[in-house]
Amino acid sequence: MNKINSSDDYRTDKFSNYIEEFKIPFTLDLDRGGKLNDVVIAYETYGSLNEDKTNAILICHAITGDSHVAKHNEKDLPGWWDAMVGPGKPIDTTKYFVVCSNILGSCRGTTGPNSINKETGKFYGAEFPVITIKDMVKVQNYLIEYLGIDKLLGVIGGSLGGFQCLEWATEYPEKIKGCLPIASSARLTTQGLAFDVVARNSIISDPNFNFGNYYKKSKKPDVGLALARMLGHITYLSRESMNEKFEIDRNSPRELSTSFEKKFSVGSYLAYQGEKFVERFDANSYITLSTALDLFDLGSTKDILTENLSKSLCDWLLISFSSDWLYPAFQSIDIVEALISNSKKVSYCNVHSNSGHDAFLLNEDIEHYGQIAESFFKNLIHLDNGEIKKAKVCDSKVNIGLNNRIDFQYISNLIPNSSSILDLGCENGDLIEQLSSIDISSALGVEINESNVISCIDKGINVIHSDLDSRLEKFYDSQFDVAILSQTLQSIKNVEKILKEMTRVAKSSIISFPNFAFKPMRDMFYNEGKAPKISGWYGYNWYDTPNVRFPSINDFLEFCEEKNIKIKKSLYLDTIKNKKITDNPNLNADSAIFLIS
Amino acid sequence: MNKINSSDDYRTDKFSNYIEEFKIPFTLDLDRGGKLNDVVIAYETYGSLNEDKTNAILICHAITGDSHVAKHNEKDLPGWWDAMVGPGKPIDTTKYFVVCSNILGSCRGTTGPNSINKETGKFYGAEFPVITIKDMVKVQNYLIEYLGIDKLLGVIGGSLGGFQCLEWATEYPEKIKGCLPIASSARLTTQGLAFDVVARNSIISDPNFNFGNYYKKSKKPDVGLALARMLGHITYLSRESMNEKFEIDRNSPRELSTSFEKKFSVGSYLAYQGEKFVERFDANSYITLSTALDLFDLGSTKDILTENLSKSLCDWLLISFSSDWLYPAFQSIDIVEALISNSKKVSYCNVHSNSGHDAFLLNEDIEHYGQIAESFFKNLIHLDNGEIKKAKVCDSKVNIGLNNRIDFQYISNLIPNSSSILDLGCENGDLIEQLSSIDISSALGVEINESNVISCIDKGINVIHSDLDSRLEKFYDSQFDVAILSQTLQSIKNVEKILKEMTRVAKSSIISFPNFAFKPMRDMFYNEGKAPKISGWYGYNWYDTPNVRFPSINDFLEFCEEKNIKIKKSLYLDTIKNKKITDNPNLNADSAIFLIS
Repeated sequence: MNKINSSDDYRTDKFSNYIEEFKIPFTLDLDRGGKLNDVVIAYETYGSLNEDKTNAILICHAITGDSHVAKHNEKDLPGWWDAMVGPGKPIDTTKYFVVCSNILGSCRGTTGPNSINKETGKFYGAEFPVITIKDMVKVQNYLIEYLGIDKLLGVIGGSLGGFQCLEWATEYPEKIKGCLPIASSARLTTQGLAFDVVARNSIISDPNFNFGNYYKKSKKPDVGLALARMLGHITYLSRESMNEKFEIDRNSPRELSTSFEKKFSVGSYLAYQGEKFVERFDANSYITLSTALDLFDLGSTKDILTENLSKSLCDWLLISFSSDWLYPAFQSIDIVEALISNSKKVSYCNVHSNSGHDAFLLNEDIEHYGQIAESFFKNLIHLDNGEIKKAKVCDSKVNIGLNNRIDFQYISNLIPNSSSILDLGCENGDLIEQLSSIDISSALGVEINESNVISCIDKGINVIHSDLDSRLEKFYDSQFDVAILSQTLQSIKNVEKILKEMTRVAKSSIISFPNFAFKPMRDMFYNEGKAPKISGWYGYNWYDTPNVRFPSINDFLEFCEEKNIKIKKSLYLDTIKNKKITDNPNLNADSAIFLIS
Repeated sequence: MNKINSSDDYRTDKFSNYIEEFKIPFTLDLDRGGKLNDVVIAYETYGSLNEDKTNAILICHAITGDSHVAKHNEKDLPGWWDAMVGPGKPIDTTKYFVVCSNILGSCRGTTGPNSINKETGKFYGAEFPVITIKDMVKVQNYLIEYLGIDKLLGVIGGSLGGFQCLEWATEYPEKIKGCLPIASSARLTTQGLAFDVVARNSIISDPNFNFGNYYKKSKKPDVGLALARMLGHITYLSRESMNEKFEIDRNSPRELSTSFEKKFSVGSYLAYQGEKFVERFDANSYITLSTALDLFDLGSTKDILTENLSKSLCDWLLISFSSDWLYPAFQSIDIVEALISNSKKVSYCNVHSNSGHDAFLLNEDIEHYGQIAESFFKNLIHLDNGEIKKAKVCDSKVNIGLNNRIDFQYISNLIPNSSSILDLGCENGDLIEQLSSIDISSALGVEINESNVISCIDKGINVIHSDLDSRLEKFYDSQFDVAILSQTLQSIKNVEKILKEMTRVAKSSIISFPNFAFKPMRDMFYNEGKAPKISGWYGYNWYDTPNVRFPSINDFLEFCEEKNIKIKKSLYLDTIKNKKITDNPNLNADSAIFLIS
């Protein structure tokens, strides 16, 4: 049954043959007051719900999207996320039961301003009430109940879809296991808001808008809606991607029959996009949805955001894109910080892309970030229902031969039972994996390298994609039991700040570093007058070593005394001979581990 | 005489009582074909032209500006750049003769679409021809000739005003001594172009636009023009400054009588700005000027830009603002690079600001960057007319006591006569100042610290505000005779790349650095097992030293051999005792200087 082509006489394109409908059998009370009767939800499903109903993923679409997230078969019309959803795709429809519904207020099947108000027998038009993201998600929740799903494996969505994910996590915390907002935020920036205001102004100022009552008129507010779409398009692309697209033929617009300007190639592109858009979208819906988007506000300060996210019970993954200036990375980081403050399980990756906000929809970017989403759901489905994820129990005979990481074992021994762990510069998660064999309550890594972050997420390790400096200062005092800085001290420029922050955010800290004053180093420098270089952490040339600090054990001891840092335990190692050093460690140890507070 | 209030019946506000007029006594042939008769230029002047007519500065305004750059006295109406221009201001009207004219095509006094076409007796309206920046500057040139000025001390302007500066430098190279484009570029980004397209589309789609013929109608395209202005406003501000302005009362719009949306505080601001703008600006002028802006194109590639700028003869200063995303810093850098390729005298500063593109107009930003413009003109007026600036001749007994910079003297000795110099990490220009006492043909510094850059510009030293890595790779092969890296090697992470690039861009290079293997350092490390620390370059703690590399003389010699770098001369110094070291320098010298190629 396809409502689009039956009960709705407003012009639409045929975008799916697989739409199903569910009619909410009672009056919907709305967030901002007002009611809606006879709300119809248009939705599509992919794959099969498993017997214990634990494999359902809800996909939330963005402002102009619809239920047709992917084609149902080779003959079907293209979906808007075909690269992400389908058999063998990151959201594999042979494994997961995928649901995507058109959002409330849209014009693509679900009740919206272009629906007939049965009470009046007329189009809602301007009478359509103000709705919020809360209302959209409420409607989705009714659908999920109707489909017999008690708990979703996850919700995922980009942009406005991300807002819906956040709403699910906070309004129906017990009903989702995982939450994956992509290119999203807790609220729009003022800049984003301003673009929306201008877009809506261009619609309401169109003389054919007629205060929203135009459905029966021959002229519709197409010019205003097209202008809004043009503006939107600019904000969805990055400066780089716009240059790539339109620099070559800047002054050669495409041939196009339009009343809009077509002086420049980007001009003809915008005119085309604007005019194409009005064929498939309704101006009233655009106003309704963009207003809902602008009203979404999970908190303007970290405290409010933290309070609002405290209700969530799910695992989290947040993805942002480096060139997205409409939903810039720092906004995803704000959410991540609030979740960490609540001790929620969260990972975050700022995916490198030149595509701007649009990246979440583009095949080339999905090729890159799709695997992260895939890993997230893969690890989620293996978790026990409703439980906070436990560290994996590993074979106690862990292989510690890798790069002579004998220090990992000693670090493990320093960690009290049931500790929460922060691993700074966690690389691909090897240390955290090793720690899974002991009793810890949680572990979070911080890592700057994107591939390492992706590896961690694949292993089910919670990791934050960030540099250490900016990350540490955002944690609360004593937020962790143990912070670890393993063989990273020597590559940190601002040593004092990092150590100060570590001792602030964790009850105790473990620092391991290679001892620069190890005897062979001293000998080499003294006798040859050259930058010392031995195999291991100091096995680099002076001119291209990743190390920028060269601490000796005595330097570190002196530093701690000076800065009033208390050393609770110290361990000195010869990692080559795999033994502890007690005799003159500053001369005889190649590596040191300190437990400080 | 004030044309605004006499001959022009199009609505205008009274913005100046000091406008003078000059009528071009012949037909103006336009850049893109077409002609204009009876062109009137509205302009204002400040201060007095000196006897030898060498103190005239032309100020070029941006798209919606006018001739009233500053108030003429305390009782006068405010000007748009009062913080920059006036007695005692950075452009001091007690020293300089300042000229500012309304640009061709505008609606603020100079001939534009809202002028009467004397041939038809009607408003030009849509009949006004397409004009370019070239036409605007041509008109300005007639005015300057009319005022009896053979050569301007300088032209300065922000945004579209910067385009005019660039046009002056390339079309009338012999007529300006200095050029100061602020927050400008060689052409708009595609993103900037796209915003302009949407702005023009909103005007031409306004039913009251009537193809540009609306002057005699009761309704004018105010809605379209207001929308264009709203959009412009967003692009003039930065995301940060928008948040600062509108975050506190996000949902509390100002009381305002408007047909535009006023749901959010930023919405009421934009509505107010849009509606205020239509009272003082003409829609046809907006289209005419923004089209001229979009057509300006000094080159899409470095080669074309370099070719176009090769004609220029003036000294250059370019200023960008760190948060300006409409004319981003990299676009100013593109111009700087093209000028350097042409061996032009150029300085560049990327001024830190949160204000976005608007920074060039804002008092708080002018307080910061005004001094740079002031220094530029101060140094310009002391130059001989028409000559390329020569290095200053200093007292040959230069004080080299500062920080024991005995090495400066030795570096000077290594430089062949008439060399062009590149000083990497030039700090506040001390070395280049010292080099002024010897015979060099030119000197250019590269410096990352903004205050240092400002100091250099104040001293009349050409300096580029940049890090070394990204700067070096943009220079041509053998672009300089001598590149100098003075006591900076130890703070550079990618030593190999920097040295490789130096030897590429300069015929020979001078590297000076502190010798890490100096005897007291070795002794300290060997005996105490602690990071060595002595007074001077290695006088820092291991944990907060700016140094990240610790080369010894032998390390450097080995490196050069390995990388096939030829050492032509070497000098080893004890800078404390102020003497050369020949005996075992790797042990006995605290500093080394190499001439390599």
